Amino acid sequence: MDLSVYMNSVSVDCVVFGFNNGLMKVLLLKMKYTHEWTLPGGFVRKEETVESAATRILKERTGLDNIFLKQFRVFSEPERSKMNPAVSDLVASGANPDLDWFAQRFISIGFYALVDFTKAVPTPDYFSEKAEWRNIDEVDPLIIDHSLILQKALNTLRLQISYQPIGYNLLPDKFTMPELQKLYETILGKKLDRRNFQRRMLSFNILNKLPETKKGGAHKAPFLYEFNLENYKKALENGLGGGW
Amino acid sequence: MDLSVYMNSVSVDCVVFGFNNGLMKVLLLKMKYTHEWTLPGGFVRKEETVESAATRILKERTGLDNIFLKQFRVFSEPERSKMNPAVSDLVASGANPDLDWFAQRFISIGFYALVDFTKAVPTPDYFSEKAEWRNIDEVDPLIIDHSLILQKALNTLRLQISYQPIGYNLLPDKFTMPELQKLYETILGKKLDRRNFQRRMLSFNILNKLPETKKGGAHKAPFLYEFNLENYKKALENGLGGGW
Repeated sequence: MDLSVYMNSVSVDCVVFGFNNGLMKVLLLKMKYTHEWTLPGGFVRKEETVESAATRILKERTGLDNIFLKQFRVFSEPERSKMNPAVSDLVASGANPDLDWFAQRFISIGFYALVDFTKAVPTPDYFSEKAEWRNIDEVDPLIIDHSLILQKALNTLRLQISYQPIGYNLLPDKFTMPELQKLYETILGKKLDRRNFQRRMLSFNILNKLPETKKGGAHKAPFLYEFNLENYKKALENGLGGGW
Repeated sequence: MDLSVYMNSVSVDCVVFGFNNGLMKVLLLKMKYTHEWTLPGGFVRKEETVESAATRILKERTGLDNIFLKQFRVFSEPERSKMNPAVSDLVASGANPDLDWFAQRFISIGFYALVDFTKAVPTPDYFSEKAEWRNIDEVDPLIIDHSLILQKALNTLRLQISYQPIGYNLLPDKFTMPELQKLYETILGKKLDRRNFQRRMLSFNILNKLPETKKGGAHKAPFLYEFNLENYKKALENGLGGGW
């Protein structure tokens, strides 16, 4: 592994939230020697931006391109890298000669990503023995400050859905109102009132109601919707409800 | 200037928005030799977080403590530092021997801050000949990517006020609804409807209406309000309107 291609001092950590059918998971890696869990992450190449680094790392860990990816916070406690027990275990394992590199102070740029977990192929990196989706409420303690990074990403996502739309790329192209509500309930970890949800969601003007209904259920066939992508993008920029 | 106390590769740039009485300004520094304008900024000490660095830099440039300060984005174009004509001018001036330091790639963490500009004392740094408040719509082109950083900070602030409260520390403890509306109009750069503004603002439940009115105006004395700090803080965390 040639570390000379990377910038010193700067790393990227990615909280990859995976959704499907009312489940919310997070992508974790299990380290080779210490068997501890970690978020996918990596370093920043000398010729790339931090966004390119995060995109590259996610592509390597999931096989996916073009996913919703957002910088959300920088983690810079001076002693954070020293909280990494993996460094001393790497010494013991003899696996890596570049210990000065791993012992330096890293400032980590936190990103979060939203994907359909059925479309991703979890792939371990050089330091890990496996990569897998874990349910969001069944996550073991993570190395360094990764548990904090995960918690902050979740808080950011929950605040974000109060002012920006979500769901594109996470739901089928055509979806029902209950499916959309289920996505919100999954992220928020709580039940929402059906009528209030529908009224509020329709007021944002980001949905097209389709003339079709979803067939095959036991109940009355619910209407199908699709996102109005033009308004959806505007709401991403200006906030739901159009701001002030 | 002892540069050995700082981390390599990481800098902080601060967009300091100053408000008072319907005016919105931004704090800029004018560089000594090139006379170009720049945002206040600096490097990160080896023992401090990026937040501590930004707080320290703002204290040095404004004399103010305890100001609203928020990380909003990382700027990491690989060539961004090379866009700095000040480096070659520093060579010509003979002012600084540490050119390797300034020529290295820096990833800059952008912060924005909100202050009452009448309470700040603009203070130049080692590299600048003066520090001053400029009206937000009368800003000359800035060095490197600082014009972009300013624009992104302004976009973030405008989106933020669609989902989080603002005004604490920028308005007097007791203020009128027209004064609060003026603050929003100043940030947004547009007029708002008086009735809609009042109705929407009251619906957030972050204001206490006081039993007093503001005396001394030519018109009917308007009621005074204060922020309900408990609800204000909740809305900072969960979004205005309490989210979903």
